[in-house]
Amino acid sequence: MSKFWSPIVASLEPYVAGEQPAIANLVKLNTNENPWGPSPQVLEAIHAATNDDLRRYPDPSAKALKEAIARYHDVTPEQVFVGNGSDEVLAFIFASLLKHDAPLLYPDITYSFYPTYSRLFDIETRTIPLDADYRIRPEDYDSPCGAIILPNPNAPTGIGLPLGDIERLASAHPDQVVAVDEAYVDFGGATAIPLVATNENVIVIRTFSKSRSLAGLRVGYAIAQRPLIEALERMKDSFNSYPLDRIAQVAAVASIEDDAWFTARRDELIENRRRLTVELENRGFVVLPSQANFIFARKPGFEGKALAAALRERAVLVRHFGKPRIADFLRISIGTEAECRRLVEALDDIL
Amino acid sequence: MSKFWSPIVASLEPYVAGEQPAIANLVKLNTNENPWGPSPQVLEAIHAATNDDLRRYPDPSAKALKEAIARYHDVTPEQVFVGNGSDEVLAFIFASLLKHDAPLLYPDITYSFYPTYSRLFDIETRTIPLDADYRIRPEDYDSPCGAIILPNPNAPTGIGLPLGDIERLASAHPDQVVAVDEAYVDFGGATAIPLVATNENVIVIRTFSKSRSLAGLRVGYAIAQRPLIEALERMKDSFNSYPLDRIAQVAAVASIEDDAWFTARRDELIENRRRLTVELENRGFVVLPSQANFIFARKPGFEGKALAAALRERAVLVRHFGKPRIADFLRISIGTEAECRRLVEALDDIL
Repeated sequence: MSKFWSPIVASLEPYVAGEQPAIANLVKLNTNENPWGPSPQVLEAIHAATNDDLRRYPDPSAKALKEAIARYHDVTPEQVFVGNGSDEVLAFIFASLLKHDAPLLYPDITYSFYPTYSRLFDIETRTIPLDADYRIRPEDYDSPCGAIILPNPNAPTGIGLPLGDIERLASAHPDQVVAVDEAYVDFGGATAIPLVATNENVIVIRTFSKSRSLAGLRVGYAIAQRPLIEALERMKDSFNSYPLDRIAQVAAVASIEDDAWFTARRDELIENRRRLTVELENRGFVVLPSQANFIFARKPGFEGKALAAALRERAVLVRHFGKPRIADFLRISIGTEAECRRLVEALDDIL
Repeated sequence: MSKFWSPIVASLEPYVAGEQPAIANLVKLNTNENPWGPSPQVLEAIHAATNDDLRRYPDPSAKALKEAIARYHDVTPEQVFVGNGSDEVLAFIFASLLKHDAPLLYPDITYSFYPTYSRLFDIETRTIPLDADYRIRPEDYDSPCGAIILPNPNAPTGIGLPLGDIERLASAHPDQVVAVDEAYVDFGGATAIPLVATNENVIVIRTFSKSRSLAGLRVGYAIAQRPLIEALERMKDSFNSYPLDRIAQVAAVASIEDDAWFTARRDELIENRRRLTVELENRGFVVLPSQANFIFARKPGFEGKALAAALRERAVLVRHFGKPRIADFLRISIGTEAECRRLVEALDDIL
């Protein structure tokens, strides 16, 4: 604590991202990155944009990117907000749409950045426990609140909610924002974007970091009706005019435009997830049913922390959360077939 | 105003960036961009980084970039904070270091994002008028305050303060942060970075957008002693883990490493500024003495707004601020020799 700090600084609880270590021959299954690179068209678009125009500021409104996203999702560009990764988009949503006189509701086991944002923006929160099967039960959210946010599929469980459940939540809270964080939805979940047209309280958050293999370029977005998007624009234009650089904008447009590449890689990942789930279940793991690009699994009789450390010794990185109810689980990102095999071999060596 | 908005949203006063229009054959002297592209080594570094690794998150601590900046300025990497343009760095500084029980002081005529940040973070402010010559007088800041921020050189005047004046401010306010925003310092100002070693309250903010021709990639940084940097890190890690993407990080490192390119372009810009100043003075303009990559000038008997509009009709874009005391001035970014000539010709046509 320093006398120079503004009062809020000491009270923050910064988020800790998954580590990015430099280990030789590492199998990196700890941050839900895509095992394959982006579309060749993305790389071409970056090469083409690598020129003297970099001396110019980017388009602060990211017009071309919003138009591409709008076409893809069949909404209007005015219903799209873009930011520096879905984390920045989420930060603006917490600040501008989720802070009210009643508590914000979210699951007790969920994306661990939510409590961090809540602390940063001084938002009163109430966590709603997942049920015994680690599922979100929409009826548990039937209480007075200021707003609701949940990932669908949820993280780190990977379990998705059907669209009807999201619709039920939105209808039960017509005067509150219901934010649906769809970072992982492309891997088998049901998107709530179609609900935006008829639900003025629904906002959907997406990212290019997972299914579009662009974690390195930091592009996220949100889709909602105008009043919600306008709140985000006001906040962003009070903070940083140009959070998306020139390269990120053209790369994201090129990614949207290569749907064949996107679909093929997604299908292969889903197949790898199915296979890895079987392999782990064959070895006595309990694997939660995942609709994401990771699985959440535990081996009865084994401590999650010890297992993660043993894997690390074998140059296989997975993520472990030392939190109540999930301390024995490992969150394992789905890799290539070869990476999944390395993981299974390492587990066979340990067990 | 929407029922879904958090209370703060309606009270914001978003910053309005200089326009980025698509006009054929435009001479764009309105956003202080560099008239020349970045070093060829920067473009090479981007091409080399355009590969499948984009699927990976960037280094959240930007270690290599902090090391390059630290070497360049002869400080330690731990004394460096990096962010998405100096605007994001400034936002974190306002939130974490400039909000206190006493008012934040800054000049009445200065970077127009300062009041926006102050509104966003609910910071009490008091503006200190520039003197009749549009200069900052350090002794005018000798009053109780929570913190001080000023650009050096100031914007949009372009007038710099000598290092002794910054030192005087820092010594007069040992318990308050003195933030020195050096976006334009490379064009002839005196940097306060040497003061950081002996002044625990001084923080210096820099950008790659101006002198390093990388406005399109969004890289800014701050240099200070550890307690101030730690406050920024806590804030950033509560907001967005990876605001600087992979491409921006490698490009910025390459830029720092090509000092010959940097020096040559900077010297040419300073020479163009000298020449343009003479040309305008020959035409009866009052030109404030600039140490930046722009000049701030007025033509007695002419309205700034009308002059800017007339230039725009001739496809020459300059920036006009419709504010008290400076409404008759134009802020003109220094361009190439050809661009400066086009501006002068357009003025000759108008006058």
